[in-house]
Amino acid sequence: MFSRSQTLLAEFLGTAFLLATVVGSGIMAERLADGNIAIALLGNTIPTGAILFVLITILGPISGAHFNPAVTMVMALNGDLKRFDALPYIAVQIIGGLVGVWCAHMMFAEQVLQISQKDRFGQGQWFSEFVATFGLILVIFLAVKFKREAVASVVGLYITSAYWFTASTSFANPAVTIARSLSDSFAGIAPMSVMPFIGAQLLGALAALMIFLFFRQLPK
Amino acid sequence: MFSRSQTLLAEFLGTAFLLATVVGSGIMAERLADGNIAIALLGNTIPTGAILFVLITILGPISGAHFNPAVTMVMALNGDLKRFDALPYIAVQIIGGLVGVWCAHMMFAEQVLQISQKDRFGQGQWFSEFVATFGLILVIFLAVKFKREAVASVVGLYITSAYWFTASTSFANPAVTIARSLSDSFAGIAPMSVMPFIGAQLLGALAALMIFLFFRQLPK
Amino acid sequence: MFSRSQTLLAEFLGTAFLLATVVGSGIMAERLADGNIAIALLGNTIPTGAILFVLITILGPISGAHFNPAVTMVMALNGDLKRFDALPYIAVQIIGGLVGVWCAHMMFAEQVLQISQKDRFGQGQWFSEFVATFGLILVIFLAVKFKREAVASVVGLYITSAYWFTASTSFANPAVTIARSLSDSFAGIAPMSVMPFIGAQLLGALAALMIFLFFRQLPK
Amino acid sequence: MFSRSQTLLAEFLGTAFLLATVVGSGIMAERLADGNIAIALLGNTIPTGAILFVLITILGPISGAHFNPAVTMVMALNGDLKRFDALPYIAVQIIGGLVGVWCAHMMFAEQVLQISQKDRFGQGQWFSEFVATFGLILVIFLAVKFKREAVASVVGLYITSAYWFTASTSFANPAVTIARSLSDSFAGIAPMSVMPFIGAQLLGALAALMIFLFFRQLPK
Repeated sequence: MFSRSQTLLAEFLGTAFLLATVVGSGIMAERLADGNIAIALLGNTIPTGAILFVLITILGPISGAHFNPAVTMVMALNGDLKRFDALPYIAVQIIGGLVGVWCAHMMFAEQVLQISQKDRFGQGQWFSEFVATFGLILVIFLAVKFKREAVASVVGLYITSAYWFTASTSFANPAVTIARSLSDSFAGIAPMSVMPFIGAQLLGALAALMIFLFFRQLPK
Repeated sequence: MFSRSQTLLAEFLGTAFLLATVVGSGIMAERLADGNIAIALLGNTIPTGAILFVLITILGPISGAHFNPAVTMVMALNGDLKRFDALPYIAVQIIGGLVGVWCAHMMFAEQVLQISQKDRFGQGQWFSEFVATFGLILVIFLAVKFKREAVASVVGLYITSAYWFTASTSFANPAVTIARSLSDSFAGIAPMSVMPFIGAQLLGALAALMIFLFFRQLPK
Repeated sequence: MFSRSQTLLAEFLGTAFLLATVVGSGIMAERLADGNIAIALLGNTIPTGAILFVLITILGPISGAHFNPAVTMVMALNGDLKRFDALPYIAVQIIGGLVGVWCAHMMFAEQVLQISQKDRFGQGQWFSEFVATFGLILVIFLAVKFKREAVASVVGLYITSAYWFTASTSFANPAVTIARSLSDSFAGIAPMSVMPFIGAQLLGALAALMIFLFFRQLPK
Repeated sequence: MFSRSQTLLAEFLGTAFLLATVVGSGIMAERLADGNIAIALLGNTIPTGAILFVLITILGPISGAHFNPAVTMVMALNGDLKRFDALPYIAVQIIGGLVGVWCAHMMFAEQVLQISQKDRFGQGQWFSEFVATFGLILVIFLAVKFKREAVASVVGLYITSAYWFTASTSFANPAVTIARSLSDSFAGIAPMSVMPFIGAQLLGALAALMIFLFFRQLPK
């Protein structure tokens, strides 16, 4: 129904606004919170959950509103997206994420090009990313199957929750992880910490796909 | 429509994610809140209300999304669940809760096995649990009867509210109460305080069932 | 469809839970907020908005979910409620409010009978109550007419907002005002301040009814 | 269906309540937040997002609920509003905004006539307003086209998010910008800063209209 350039522009815009929100609200919150990190995290969480609801609602009808290579991967594996479309989706998600980070830096009058120095390392962090992505993918697949009109709500509220119940604040998205490595701010992640995060995310996504397939089985 | 192993897995996953959220967000919030307990409670409340909406939306179509032995008990008494199914439901809820707590500890790199030392004792606490569970069960039954599509919203928002309007922060769930006794963190409850909480919860649930039956009567 | 005893019980329970939430969350928030009143008000606002959504959703189908003598008055004036029903509604709302306050005091192990000593006095306060009730009644009437399924959402979110945009934190409800005079806590109001608040509320409600009637006119 | 005086009254009331909320909650939040600006911004954000949902839900059926000259301009350009109606809409939005600010001042017992002294100046601020308005208009047009019943939700949550992800706290509305220049409070903007803000907003709105037209194209 939509042309390829339309779906890719939707993925680009969605991922760019998502990252502008994650990084921009992180900068705003840290600047204003006067050292109280819990308040800063509230000021980072609420905007992120809200924008996810908005972006999925308005762009979902055009591209499916993945904004996340892990989602695109399991959608392709499950036959919900043509495999031929997966790579361009992932490419524009990564590019969109970078542009979003740079827009946030420009809005807050920070240097555009940055590299994060915040190490996010260790078994607790990696297990957090596994759990966060496992939950995210399971939520998306079950909502798409049983309650399609609630997908935007459940994804927005799942991430709102996962910011707090995981030790890593729930990146759960390889494009987000790469983009946040280029921001030396509240939401940043050092480049050396990126690959293990993405590994844990992809494992969590695959585990969720298996559980979903079990729920889809007909009873014997 | 779903097999017993599917419904039990749904109850297990839902209760596990619920407890991972309650305990995990409690640890995160307490670590970051710099001693301001009201901010910590906000950081515990918002994720809990959000995840309840998510879990009930995605797992409700499979198992009914009880995640709570008090709910299962009154559903069975009211004939909404086969009595034969009640005990397995309650068993996997309790096991799921424990696994959720342990996952939270692993994500936050804490010792997995803990025992809470936080006493929650006294008439105010017990009356709080009676009121909290009375309200929760009444909300669930009336929503299921009059506004089925709103069940996830009203349960999520009821608990969001009850975290603050009860002195106990509203456990309102025997499986949650048992599981939280195994976490020596913000959300913990000392084992000696568990039984009176569960007693008050079951009384509140039965009182709610009676009020609901009064509302269901046909006018004479 | 429902008997009178059922509708009156619904009004009683709804107003009781509303007041238990307003007063209970006020006590909780003030105890925990460590002197930061903005955080305490957040901890009072979010539970109140949330419980209004819940109570209107589950009890609206039974009694219309007024919980507010000002609402009952304009509904009766507008012919949406039999005038014969208005007085019993208002009576159980007032009684329910008192019971809710006392339950909150019991949950928080405070003395049950209290009198507030918090003066809320002056033109700014009274104009606030006029504006708050004007907006509340207009929101209810327009939502009932144009978007009935959104009544619970708009009332919950209107009060969430009005807690902050009025100087009085938006009582906007005579039963709530009377009940809060019997709690010497965060949400209290001194008995001497009650009558002017109620006067301003009723004027605001009548002004809203007039605006609503203008919107209902057919174009000439 | 509605007469012109009805639609203009709806635009007047909506913009007045919007500004009363932005300015009133800003005053309340700053007074209570004890110098922690992040908490003040939370107390300003949540009421603003909430009232937008409410106002769009109840007044949308009457006037379309623009409350924003940038919205009216692009709606007229796109043929969604008769051009003849655009100027009266914009006029009552500006007047409504002023009345809303003055009502907020009266509620908080402040001097009614004020001039803001808060400079909001510089490329980061202007780029923020461009991005904020670009996103707002794109969100509105796509939601109106694909998900009309979600317009109130997505606008309320978009502004909730944009308060934090932009450096300017997202005015995104010329009538709001003018009105806030007449309040020397948390939400104020110095008169000298108004014109560049409005310029950036209109550019953002036009850019969003172009992107929307691209999404509306049929695939070749």
